[in-house]
This record gives sequence, C-alpha cells and structure tokens, in this order.
Amino acid sequence: MITADQPRPRQHEVLVKVKVTSVCGTDYHIYRWDQWAQTHIKPPRIIGHEFAGEIVEIGPDVNSPAVGDLVAAESHIGCGTCYQCRTGNSHICEKLAIIGVDVDGSFAEFVRIPAQNAWPIPKEVPVETASVLEPLGNAVHAAFAADIAGNTVSIFGCGPVGLSAVALTKVAGALSVTAVDVNDYRLKLAERMGASKTINSKNNDPVSEIHKDTEGRGAGVVLEMSGNDLAIRQAFRAVRNGGTVILFGLPAREVQLNIADDLIFKEAHVQGIVGREIFKTWYKLESILKSGKLNLQPLITHRMSLDELDEAMRLVGTGNCAKIVLTP
Amino acid sequence: MITADQPRPRQHEVLVKVKVTSVCGTDYHIYRWDQWAQTHIKPPRIIGHEFAGEIVEIGPDVNSPAVGDLVAAESHIGCGTCYQCRTGNSHICEKLAIIGVDVDGSFAEFVRIPAQNAWPIPKEVPVETASVLEPLGNAVHAAFAADIAGNTVSIFGCGPVGLSAVALTKVAGALSVTAVDVNDYRLKLAERMGASKTINSKNNDPVSEIHKDTEGRGAGVVLEMSGNDLAIRQAFRAVRNGGTVILFGLPAREVQLNIADDLIFKEAHVQGIVGREIFKTWYKLESILKSGKLNLQPLITHRMSLDELDEAMRLVGTGNCAKIVLTP
Amino acid sequence: MITADQPRPRQHEVLVKVKVTSVCGTDYHIYRWDQWAQTHIKPPRIIGHEFAGEIVEIGPDVNSPAVGDLVAAESHIGCGTCYQCRTGNSHICEKLAIIGVDVDGSFAEFVRIPAQNAWPIPKEVPVETASVLEPLGNAVHAAFAADIAGNTVSIFGCGPVGLSAVALTKVAGALSVTAVDVNDYRLKLAERMGASKTINSKNNDPVSEIHKDTEGRGAGVVLEMSGNDLAIRQAFRAVRNGGTVILFGLPAREVQLNIADDLIFKEAHVQGIVGREIFKTWYKLESILKSGKLNLQPLITHRMSLDELDEAMRLVGTGNCAKIVLTP
Amino acid sequence: MITADQPRPRQHEVLVKVKVTSVCGTDYHIYRWDQWAQTHIKPPRIIGHEFAGEIVEIGPDVNSPAVGDLVAAESHIGCGTCYQCRTGNSHICEKLAIIGVDVDGSFAEFVRIPAQNAWPIPKEVPVETASVLEPLGNAVHAAFAADIAGNTVSIFGCGPVGLSAVALTKVAGALSVTAVDVNDYRLKLAERMGASKTINSKNNDPVSEIHKDTEGRGAGVVLEMSGNDLAIRQAFRAVRNGGTVILFGLPAREVQLNIADDLIFKEAHVQGIVGREIFKTWYKLESILKSGKLNLQPLITHRMSLDELDEAMRLVGTGNCAKIVLTP
Repeated sequence: MITADQPRPRQHEVLVKVKVTSVCGTDYHIYRWDQWAQTHIKPPRIIGHEFAGEIVEIGPDVNSPAVGDLVAAESHIGCGTCYQCRTGNSHICEKLAIIGVDVDGSFAEFVRIPAQNAWPIPKEVPVETASVLEPLGNAVHAAFAADIAGNTVSIFGCGPVGLSAVALTKVAGALSVTAVDVNDYRLKLAERMGASKTINSKNNDPVSEIHKDTEGRGAGVVLEMSGNDLAIRQAFRAVRNGGTVILFGLPAREVQLNIADDLIFKEAHVQGIVGREIFKTWYKLESILKSGKLNLQPLITHRMSLDELDEAMRLVGTGNCAKIVLTP
Repeated sequence: MITADQPRPRQHEVLVKVKVTSVCGTDYHIYRWDQWAQTHIKPPRIIGHEFAGEIVEIGPDVNSPAVGDLVAAESHIGCGTCYQCRTGNSHICEKLAIIGVDVDGSFAEFVRIPAQNAWPIPKEVPVETASVLEPLGNAVHAAFAADIAGNTVSIFGCGPVGLSAVALTKVAGALSVTAVDVNDYRLKLAERMGASKTINSKNNDPVSEIHKDTEGRGAGVVLEMSGNDLAIRQAFRAVRNGGTVILFGLPAREVQLNIADDLIFKEAHVQGIVGREIFKTWYKLESILKSGKLNLQPLITHRMSLDELDEAMRLVGTGNCAKIVLTP
Repeated sequence: MITADQPRPRQHEVLVKVKVTSVCGTDYHIYRWDQWAQTHIKPPRIIGHEFAGEIVEIGPDVNSPAVGDLVAAESHIGCGTCYQCRTGNSHICEKLAIIGVDVDGSFAEFVRIPAQNAWPIPKEVPVETASVLEPLGNAVHAAFAADIAGNTVSIFGCGPVGLSAVALTKVAGALSVTAVDVNDYRLKLAERMGASKTINSKNNDPVSEIHKDTEGRGAGVVLEMSGNDLAIRQAFRAVRNGGTVILFGLPAREVQLNIADDLIFKEAHVQGIVGREIFKTWYKLESILKSGKLNLQPLITHRMSLDELDEAMRLVGTGNCAKIVLTP
Repeated sequence: MITADQPRPRQHEVLVKVKVTSVCGTDYHIYRWDQWAQTHIKPPRIIGHEFAGEIVEIGPDVNSPAVGDLVAAESHIGCGTCYQCRTGNSHICEKLAIIGVDVDGSFAEFVRIPAQNAWPIPKEVPVETASVLEPLGNAVHAAFAADIAGNTVSIFGCGPVGLSAVALTKVAGALSVTAVDVNDYRLKLAERMGASKTINSKNNDPVSEIHKDTEGRGAGVVLEMSGNDLAIRQAFRAVRNGGTVILFGLPAREVQLNIADDLIFKEAHVQGIVGREIFKTWYKLESILKSGKLNLQPLITHRMSLDELDEAMRLVGTGNCAKIVLTP
C-alpha cells in the first residue's frame, strides 16, 4: 500500500475517479513479486489497469471526453509515432507503455490517463461491466481473429479471458465450444457462459475427446488462453488439418513443440494475440454489448472493497474465482 | 537396388517411362535408413518421387493424358473422399499416400501413377526442369502463402526448396530477400538465384543482421526452409511485430520456442506448409515458368546416371549440391 | 408434361428415385418460357434441380454412394478438367452443366446424376429438408462469403434463398439482421426466420431506415438476394464505408449504378455469388444442420403432389410462398 | 489567381514552403469549373494538393516534423474521432476534408497543413518525386489491394495514376501487365513504365485481346483507372471467373453494368479504392522507393513554373502528358 498525492492531468490527459476496478492475472504476478514482476516493474508503482470511472478533471488540449463522462480505459499507451502506431497497430507498438505496469494504475482513488485511452461508456453498459471491458476486449480480439462462424471451437484455459471467449465465440457463430481446464469451479462457470461441453484435463484427455466430437478431424479453431505448457501442446494436437490455433495465454517458460507433426504436416495457422485493436476491438465489443447477446452475468464472481485487495489476491491464487471487482 | 517387373497401369492410372528424376532430402533419409525411414517405409520399395517422363501406356478409364504425352508428377495421392480432399485440400488428406514412400516411385525405368497426378508439361518447359516441378511447387506454395509483394523477406535454409524460394519470392515482388545458411557453397547459389544478401549464420548472427537491415523492425516475412532447431528459433526472432513466419523445413525433434516473446507479444502469424495445392500451385508455377521470370539455371548443380545413385547420395550428404538430376 | 423412359445410370452415374423435389425461381422462368428460358433451354427437357431421393441403381465404376442410400444433389456439374475445376472452383466451371437446365432433372420419378453430385444425407436430416439443401447451400455460400460475425446485416429480397440467409447470418453471428422486401407475406416469414427487423420498401425507404439503425454508418454487410434493379441500387447505398455487398439475385437487365459515390468513395467490397462451393459449402451446411441451430420450419410453406406443378407455379407467381416441395 | 496573406500555422499545424507541386485531374475539374466543382468548392479557394516542400514554421504543440524538414503531404484530413478514423481508415472518414478542395492548397508559395499530414522525405527521394507521392500512393493502394503476385493484370486508363499502377503492379509481382487507353502518347508511356503489352481500345477490342492472351480465361486482376463508362464495362468483361476488379477511376455519371453475367456468374470480387491508407500506404511506398525497383523517370513529362498554370491546364486537357510538376 502506498500513499500518493492526487495526480493532476497533464496535456492530453484526463483524471478519472475510479468507480470500479478489477483484478487481472498480471496484478497477481506483481503482487507475488515473481521474476517477471522483478524485471518489469520499477517501484513505487500503483498497479491495476482494468477500471471504469468518472472524468473529474481534464488537462490542457483535451476535446473529449468531458468532465462528468463515465469511461473505461484502454490500458495500452502507444507512442503514436512508430511504424506499428502509424499503421493502425498501436497495441503492438514497440515502445508500448502499460497502465499499472509502466505508469501508475487504478488500484487507487484517482488515475490519470491519456484522453485518447478513455472510452466513453454507453448508457446500456453498467459501470461494473465497464470495469472489465479491457479483458473482455482481449477475448473479442482473440475470438474474432479466427474463422469462428459455423466452426467447431475448443478453448484451453477458463480464466476470466477464456471464460469471456467461451461466450464471445458463441456470439461469433461457433457451432460448438468445448472448454478445457483443470479446475471444476471454472468449468462450471464455462458451462454457464455457454460452453457446449467441458473437459477437466486432469481426468480426461482433451485431445482424444475433441477428436471424438469432431468426426475424428479435430477442432476447426483452438484458442489457447491458459499459458500452460501442456495445454499449449494439447492445443496443437487438438486442431484439425488446416485449422487455426490462437495463442493468447503467456507461458512462463519456453515450450517444446512437435512442429513437424502438429503444425507443418497439418498446415495449421497460428496467430499470436495480445491486447486489443485500438479501437476496432472496442467498437466491436460495444456493438456486441448493445445487441444484448452477451451474457456476462457469471463472469464477475466476487465483489469487494479495494481495501480487501490482499483477500482478493489470495482468492486469485486459489483459482476459485473468475473476475473480482473492487470498489475504492 | 531391387529388380522388379515392368508395372502395368490399373484403372485410372498411367505408366510413365522416366526420363529424368531428381533427388530429394526424403530420399536421402530413406537411403541412410534413419529412424524416420524405419518407421515410415515398408521394404521392398522403389523410392524417388520427383520426375518427368513420357506416358507409354494408359490404364482403363483414363481420358487424359494420352500415350506420348510428356508429364511431371504430383507426388501426393489423396484418397478423394475425405473432408480435406472434398474441400480442395487433398495435399493434407488424412489418408495421404506418397509416391516413392507408400507406393513405388521413380528411381526406376517405369513408374505407374494415377492419371490425375500426371501434369502435362508445356512445350516451353525442358524435361529436366519438369523433373523438379514437384519441389519447385513446394517453394511456390510457401512463397505465395504470405504477403510477399512489397515486403522484406528472409529465408533460412538454402537447400533446393529454399533456393527456389529465393527466386520465387523475388518473382512474387519481395523488395529484398536475405538468405541464411551455414554452407558457403549454398549461399553462393542463393546469390545466383537472386538473394539481395546472404548470411552465413556460423559467422554472423542473422537475427541482428536482419534487424539492422530493416530499420530495427525485423523482416516482414520469414520462410524457414531448413528444419534446423536453431534456425527455427532465429526465424521467430527475426520476424517483425505483426509479421509472418512460414514453416516448411521439418525438424527431426521437438523444438523449444519462446512463445511469449517471439510469437504472442509480436502478434506473429505462423503458417505450416507441406506439399503443393493440387492443382492451384501447379497452374501458378506453370504461368510463372511461361512468363520467363524464373531463372532456374543455378538450381540443378549435378547431372548423373541413375546407376550413380550412391554417388548422388554421398553428394547430398556433403551439402555441396543443390538439385541432382538422374537419367535412367 | 413429357413422358420418358426410365433412365439407366451410365459410367460414374447413379440413378435416384425422387422422394421430394422443390421448386426454384429458375423453374418458374422455364415454365413461363421467358426470354432467358428460350435462349438457355433446348426442349424436350425435364426440369427441376432441387431434390432428395434414394439411390436405386448405380452405374459402372461407382464406389459410393450405394444402392439404398438417401441423397441430396449438387445441381452443378463441372467439367473436371478446366482451370476452375482443377483449382477447387468447379461451381464456376466455364463448361458448367446444370441439372434440370442442361440435362434432365428431378420433376420426374427418376433422375440420373453423376455419383459425385450425390450427397449422402445424415440421419439427422429429414428427406424434406434434404430436398432444399441445394438452395440452402446458396444461402450458406452467400452468408459465409462476408465478415458476418459481430456485424450488422441487411438482406434485400425474401425469396427462399433470402429467407434462408436471414437464418444463416444469425447462425453466423450477425448482431442484427434487417430483412427488406415488398411483400408482407414474405416479411412475416423473415421475422419467423429470425430477422431483427423487417422493412417493406414500398412503404419505407430501406436506405434511411438502415442508416438510422446503425448510428448513421450503414450496414456492415448487405446481401442482395432479389435481383431487382431498385433493390440493387439501394443495397449499395445502404452499406457503410468499407462494408461488403454480396450480390446473389440475378437482375434481368443491366443495372445503372452510382459507382463513384456508392462504391469507390465508400471503398466498398463487392462479391458475386453463384451456386455453392463443392463441397466446402455442403460440409458447412451439414455441420450447421447437425448443430440444431438452424430453424427451417417456416421455410417450407407448401407441400403438394408433383401432379400439381401448375398450381405450384401459379403460387410462385403470386409471391405468397417460400419453398414449395413436391412429391412424385 | 488570388492573392492571400501568408498563412500562420495553428495548433498541431505546420507551414510548408512549397518547392514543387503537381497537377491532378481534380485540379482540372476545378479549373474548368465543371458541375462537380460547382457543387464541391466554395470560392475563394487555393487549389492544389500534390506537393513537397520545406517546413518553415510550426504551430503550437507540434513535436514533429521540425523546421527545415522536407516533407510531402497526405491530402486527406480525417476528423480523428469518427468510427472510420478510430479504426484505421481515416481515408474514408465521413467528415473528410481535402487539401486544395475543402481547405487552401498548394498552388501557392506557402500552405499550412496538420502536422500529422506531413510525411518527412527520406534522403533517397528527390523533391520532385516527393511532389508526386500523393498520386503514387493512390496507385500503391490500388495495386496492393488485390492478389497481384504471380497474376495476370490489365490496367484500363493510363493517366498518371494508371501509369504508376503499371510500374507498381510489376514491382508487386505481376507476371504480365496489359495497359489499355485511347491515347497513343500515354500508351507509349505505359510501355516505358513496364507494360508487357498496350492496347489502344479505339483500334482493338481489349476484352477479346485480353482473353486471347490468358488462354481464354480473362485477366486475374483488372485495375480500372480511367473512370470512362465503356472502359468500366470492359473491365468487368475482361476479368476472369473468380478474378478481381479494382475500381479507382471516378465516372462522371452512373454506369450501366451487366451484373448477372459480368459479376455474379463470374463470382468476381470488386474493390473500390480511394485515397491512400494513412500511413500504411506511405510506408509501403517509401520502402518501394528505397528498394530502387520503381522507375518513375517516364512519369513526369512536363516541368513548368507555377505562373504557367493556364498552359499546364491546357496540356492536361489534351491528354498528351502524364504528370506536370510546377515550381512556385
């Protein structure tokens, strides 16, 4: 816990009074101060990057949004001048800064962000939902990166983004969505998010199950959202010839792959996915939310006060939760 | 060396009198009787699958080609009834048979093949060139699977298919083609095939060279044609954010990849490539050959008699050759 | 009405005893003997090309399907040897023959067709549904040719294929589907097929309605399934900048388009659609049917005996029907 | 001729001292004060939008470029806040403003433009070439919007953008490029830009010629760069089944198309093209220029003083010119 003065918005920035903020796996890495955190974070740093709140002050040269607007935040801050930023891919900017990692974040009463990272929330979207638009955007970006419509889909990993992907691939026209995890609590949630079938890979081999369910061909699209070594290997074995593997979950170590059999002979496509397309993904997500087709009700499993952050982190460690939202 | 009766074409088959046949890396694996060969080949088997020849007899129910036609051969025999075959992807048929691996091949005077695997050679194409259309087709399939036009390209591995890919990516509009290998003989050939630059990765780090040559961004497209572990890892590090890695070279073992940094954070695309699209690739290749834009002259480095197969295999082992063509 | 001997299947052909056959707009053109019919049909000709039935005899060299199998039929017969056929596009074969147009069709007790045009019906699919797989395939081909998932869709023309497209674009993940026609009977059906909104363009301007419903941007994808001049022009005006127009309905005359404003300044994509991809579309359709997500119940509005063909044609002329199925 | 005070750059703007400016067809429309001009231009207006020059002053809050930099200009000014602008398509912004049309342009000594519309010129690019980057960008955008590599290309219309497209489709890997126009002067230039063949459509039917040259199939890709009614109709007839028509030339009136035969039965793709992708196209163009593969020498046919604008316009009217560059 650090105490800091209330920040003032600088040029092109806005000051947001945080109304709801939610906990991401990244926050847990930092909280545990693991190796990744030690090499990426320079303390003191206020963490937290998923949030919604109200604009309470705007800096110089901000045309929109205005004081009083409710906004969610895009957490990736592009440099604006590199090749990626100037060709519509600022989410893979090479000088990327991330809120709550490289600059102060949302586990606080106030947070200042670039005005263009603030996404005004439409009336139809409750502020609690708005606080999880950022991770939902990950799932939108992943789900719409492959040819989902009319296809068979398998999703490895049922953390919050994987769970969101279950619901979103259904919206995107998947004929069936098989959810795989090692945690029954999360598999239950996957079912409630719309999974056609769930597999606990501690008890059953997901690769053979998926083949059995797809006339022996394998899944048309596999989304790997766990970052787990074994799951990544299974994802490649579960996809059918000519199919697509979306890689989103970040493995902590290098992963050994049978590239010949599982990728080349299959002519598999693989697509790495990170962050969200700014703002293509946000528009897509907003129109999906407005359509009323996305049931997010099961996604937020716990509501706490920001003061209870320690308890929230303990919960994340158990795995028996999906999204935990915190109120300052 | 085995002696066999002259085969007779069965229904839908043609009998080809081999005029020129060329040596593929696969033949070398079988010749050395390595682990792959031991598990994939059931002797006795006549090997060889790259060839051109004359139709000398046709089986029942063959409308075309006709006796007297010169043909090259597609080596992949699809089952014709599976999902992949019936959706235009018979090259990734799940019951695939390969000439010279699963059925008798072309290191012989005669070979019988399905009529539909015979590709009539246009007049403009010499029979020697026709004998290497099959591996050239690999390179066409790989080179046209990515967004080459106006892009920067790096090719790892300068065996015959890699060398062909150098020439073909130039035809496909690459702005620059960097060829990487550990063998100076082959790098010289790469230069003659049109490489803008060659890197011997025993002497220089290809990853940093490629970044230096692309304003620090990395190559837009990397074709991995070597199958070497280290090269595969370098291929992923050499590609730029949002770029494409084409995987064609078959590694003998599993490969360890830094999936987080080299694939996900980069949002790289990866495409496995095997064989040729039947017959999309053949049409493409034929029109390229007719255009006169493809200089294959440096590709065929040795011409021998089929009786000298042992010597040919020894040469393949040294690496100091590209394509070796044999005349029965 | 013509009387013909029962046909015998020739090599690679099967003889189908027709169980159910349905009426297509093309049949109506021929029935009325309009200008198109006079220039395309050489009498005597048995018409009808949408049907399902039982294999009662197979010709020489047919491996599958077998006598007793229930099959639906792909109506397009490719030559098998042209560029389009050999590159996976036999539905746009330049020497295309169509059942019921160029060879005898299904308004009869028996019809002989190439074995490879026979699509075995899975158990889950009733024979009546099987008789309309051919026009459903048109709708699948059209609906999956554009980026439907998460998009706003408008469909002009609510004949049987347009109605099917309403249901299929919903399956494919459309967020909203607006159906446009001039016939209230058909718009009612469109609603029952799942349209979010219907517009009778005799009473309301579809272009301004669609813009109003899409925050002024226009629809992301427009499917033109009517062939009507005015509707085609409206389709181009209804699509948003950067959006896609799928053209399927065949206009009887040339159509005048404002190419500058409605296509170029908008950077619209346009895709002509004809027939079905063989057999990519059939697999897609079969897996959609098996998923249970497609409600076809409202589509078949009339069931008659083949003897009542005159009455069926009269009904088609009124427009107050969708699919009419006939039993011989 | 109007006289205006030297403008001062406002916030986020730069002031450019024009070094070279070139004449576009749009300028000619305005000069003649035709119907289009009367409805789109509100005098007084300084026209001209293709230029290169030196930054002589920067407004508040401009970080780059700096005073002294040589720049070319993107002529399209997006609003920055609409759906298209925020999804990477500001060139089809719905509130688009164009330099020299909606705000004052470059037929002057000085012009002020938004800082982000200024593209710093690399050393390798002479200032005269830089003055035509804007129309070259059109040709890049059009040429790279289709699958050019290894394909047969036809280009209708050999004005400056059509001529540039001849050279650029060659760079992009076209196997053959056929140029069509009614003006022999321009067809001569097309030849010098690299056309494999030229057709004067006053003397020969381009449709039958193109079919003859492509084994009866038609061209894989047709770029329509003339805006002429007849040429647009021919473009659709010249494309092969499954091929692509790029529409860039703006017809003055509505055009009558045989949509059934020339678009639907062919399953043609059509893509409208306007402006340039900001800044994807600019990066692509810059890397092509740096590669040295683009010979622009024949493109600039006349060099004049800005005072000779009347004479330049007269020349444009004759058609016997390509790019005319003017020096203030």
